[in-house]
Amino acid sequence: MNRRMIFYTLGKMIKLEAAILVLPLIVSLIYKEPDALSFLITVLISLALGFLLTLVFKSKNKVIYAKEGFAIVALTWITISAVGALPFVISGSIPNYIDAFFETVSGFTTTGASIVKDVTALPHGILFWRSFTHWIGGMGVIVFIMAIVPSLTDRSIHILRAEMPGPIIGKLVPKAKDTAKILYLIYIVITALEFILLLLGGMPVFDSLIHSFGTAGTGGFGIKPNCLQDYSPYCKWVITIFMLIFGVNFNLYYFILLKRIKSVFKNCELWLYLALFVIASAVISFNIYSIYKTVSETVLQSSFQVASIITTTGYSTADFNQWPTLSKTVLLILMFFGGCAGSTAGGLKIQRVVMLYKSVKRELLKMLHPSSVSTVKLDGKSVDNPTLNSTNIYFAIYIGLLFIVFILISLENKFSIETNFSAAVSCFNNVGPGFGTVGPLGNYSAYSGFSKMVLSFAMLFGRLEIYPLLFTLIPSVWTKGRF
Amino acid sequence: MNRRMIFYTLGKMIKLEAAILVLPLIVSLIYKEPDALSFLITVLISLALGFLLTLVFKSKNKVIYAKEGFAIVALTWITISAVGALPFVISGSIPNYIDAFFETVSGFTTTGASIVKDVTALPHGILFWRSFTHWIGGMGVIVFIMAIVPSLTDRSIHILRAEMPGPIIGKLVPKAKDTAKILYLIYIVITALEFILLLLGGMPVFDSLIHSFGTAGTGGFGIKPNCLQDYSPYCKWVITIFMLIFGVNFNLYYFILLKRIKSVFKNCELWLYLALFVIASAVISFNIYSIYKTVSETVLQSSFQVASIITTTGYSTADFNQWPTLSKTVLLILMFFGGCAGSTAGGLKIQRVVMLYKSVKRELLKMLHPSSVSTVKLDGKSVDNPTLNSTNIYFAIYIGLLFIVFILISLENKFSIETNFSAAVSCFNNVGPGFGTVGPLGNYSAYSGFSKMVLSFAMLFGRLEIYPLLFTLIPSVWTKGRF
Repeated sequence: MNRRMIFYTLGKMIKLEAAILVLPLIVSLIYKEPDALSFLITVLISLALGFLLTLVFKSKNKVIYAKEGFAIVALTWITISAVGALPFVISGSIPNYIDAFFETVSGFTTTGASIVKDVTALPHGILFWRSFTHWIGGMGVIVFIMAIVPSLTDRSIHILRAEMPGPIIGKLVPKAKDTAKILYLIYIVITALEFILLLLGGMPVFDSLIHSFGTAGTGGFGIKPNCLQDYSPYCKWVITIFMLIFGVNFNLYYFILLKRIKSVFKNCELWLYLALFVIASAVISFNIYSIYKTVSETVLQSSFQVASIITTTGYSTADFNQWPTLSKTVLLILMFFGGCAGSTAGGLKIQRVVMLYKSVKRELLKMLHPSSVSTVKLDGKSVDNPTLNSTNIYFAIYIGLLFIVFILISLENKFSIETNFSAAVSCFNNVGPGFGTVGPLGNYSAYSGFSKMVLSFAMLFGRLEIYPLLFTLIPSVWTKGRF
Repeated sequence: MNRRMIFYTLGKMIKLEAAILVLPLIVSLIYKEPDALSFLITVLISLALGFLLTLVFKSKNKVIYAKEGFAIVALTWITISAVGALPFVISGSIPNYIDAFFETVSGFTTTGASIVKDVTALPHGILFWRSFTHWIGGMGVIVFIMAIVPSLTDRSIHILRAEMPGPIIGKLVPKAKDTAKILYLIYIVITALEFILLLLGGMPVFDSLIHSFGTAGTGGFGIKPNCLQDYSPYCKWVITIFMLIFGVNFNLYYFILLKRIKSVFKNCELWLYLALFVIASAVISFNIYSIYKTVSETVLQSSFQVASIITTTGYSTADFNQWPTLSKTVLLILMFFGGCAGSTAGGLKIQRVVMLYKSVKRELLKMLHPSSVSTVKLDGKSVDNPTLNSTNIYFAIYIGLLFIVFILISLENKFSIETNFSAAVSCFNNVGPGFGTVGPLGNYSAYSGFSKMVLSFAMLFGRLEIYPLLFTLIPSVWTKGRF
């Protein structure tokens, strides 16, 4: 392991976070609130730490391999969360450090699971920072890794693979750095568009900004006790549509820019994603019609909640914890799907589900006709066997880890199976709310410190698509390069 | 598809069931109860049906392939359940046919999930038949397929593969028919041993017989409202130990007969199985000590329940639905493991979990060192890639089907997520009881007819390890031989 290079890069990331932290500092100065000091202190601490690391670990050997790439990504997310938690603690908004770490991990991983009991008591700067982490996390640290580590460009494909959401990244342009820039630009433009549309709907500037951040990163931190319940139907529809937009593979937007509309229409994942949205919304509409009485309200409630859960955003416009079991079950299962590969959504990703289905079909055909040879195709391109097998193995690890999280948070023996299971599923898939105690109007504050740490790591595992963190946590990978 | 051969074999199976039905007929005659008539009528119906099928579909072309083997196995289980349900309906013990079908499927698949509200109201013949189906199902219809279709012997390996529990069958003796005979003999001897030990403990003859059947098949139908709660600790310990014995790979008993003790000790699955039993019992003991106060009672309760769930038997000596969440979660997760491959237990089987773990480890190594070649070994023998990949795909189908069952039974929108999820997990893994409404003192009677059919098929899918039933349910396999 090239440890010097790992810690050197970490130092750069912390310096960058210091720069980012200036934004919430400005917000708190605008609102003339005392939390400004907490951001100032954090900026100074992170600058000091960042310079210390880059000076101490400056290295001539810049060669890194997959395992260093994994370690950089995993440790970056952990470190920026550890540093990003400081303003919460220093300002007294979240006095307990583990709570603040949970909240920051939840932010950067775009989960949106919260331990804050009264969100209205938080100052504006803190609220801004909390939601801004969603926006930063949304596209992954990849973008700023690209920006600050130019010498890594040609080797950075490992980081890219480790970081980008989804099983397959279409390499749109030859250089990873250029890809990142284009995706970043698309991300900014769509976020700005949502912000403007929310403003036009009469939502206050601060609220529009916060909710645009939360939607873009498919995060879901709200700033009202009942989340989005009190906003106008227009605003709810805007957010519904933008949640869906951010759950689509960003490559498709690039295709639109290139006027390759056919490629967009041929994308099987997109159609499945939309079909899943329509079917789930329809089932839930029938199921909850008796609660909301009017068609327009019922369709809005079900569409919003389905979009929110399938994209793993986690916003709510109703206490869906009180909905009938069928609707809750549909939502629980949607949590696993997540959005499309290459979007900011968490979860398994629909493309993986498609690949699982195709590998199952191939296996069944082989059992019936042992001598037959069948190739699996996706969007017209054939998928090779190692990719298919890797998807199957990924799924096995995914389910295995989910059950480990489930049993670890059950150890404290305080909540129902429904609460624990939905908490594990929701955090691991970066959704946010679950059912029972952790329902949309509840929060995660009642869990023990141990469980909060377990759930924080579940969020990190989910967001980083397991491998980077898994390798980083195996000690022998550090010492012997294997295990 | 060689349909003639499929229906011809089905006819033979129904004739055999007619012969088996004479046993409960005798029991009801001994107890001089009126249900004797229902058995007599069923015997006559099945004889008529059996002869009709064997006469009409007598065929010269006896060649069958994998797909015919799958269809024979799947249709046999469905047909013998459909016929076996008749005595319940005719005697009036379970007036509704869907209920009776559910109960019989639950019996033959050795699940033990029941819709009977008051089990004490059933006559002895019916109770005997209900539990006898466990014993028959336990070793799979394979044994009597072997016995009655000698002309199929050399082709019957497909049926054997489709039928035998577990991912790998060690071929102990060259001919499948001889293997079956030996396993059958071991099965009878161990069952007899348990029967004698229960008698020695003062359990009445009828009760001893019923519980020996239930243990041997890892089924779990009880004959008291509170299952085994009222029997002596001695009897509970005997059943605990025998449940564990029937959860072990039967090949190991054959090794003992051959005095190949070393092979037994080298079996990694056995040790994991025992370790899992000890760890789970210890965790639950600590968790429930405050309920039972004494060490002996606590250890008995936890050991019994862990053995019952991990072997997918489903007997209970306490209402574990009232236990703390941690204990319930441990039991819920044990339901997935099942016992060892080649035992009568349901579930995934520990060997599959081991293979999943090994394929994950290999994938991780390959990611770190793309050029390295590593072979996966199990009990000293190397496992080839197709076997590992098949296990991964099996797991994907397994989880996929589980969630389909979960959502289908949620459609009726009547029970909690805990009840529905545990019902799906319990039936699919052939355990029996779940939590909530379907807890150890509850039953499945409140589910709708549709949900009962879904759960019946879940039990069949689980018992037949998915593939045979899956192929049989795909129409194009029947018409075009592919899909």
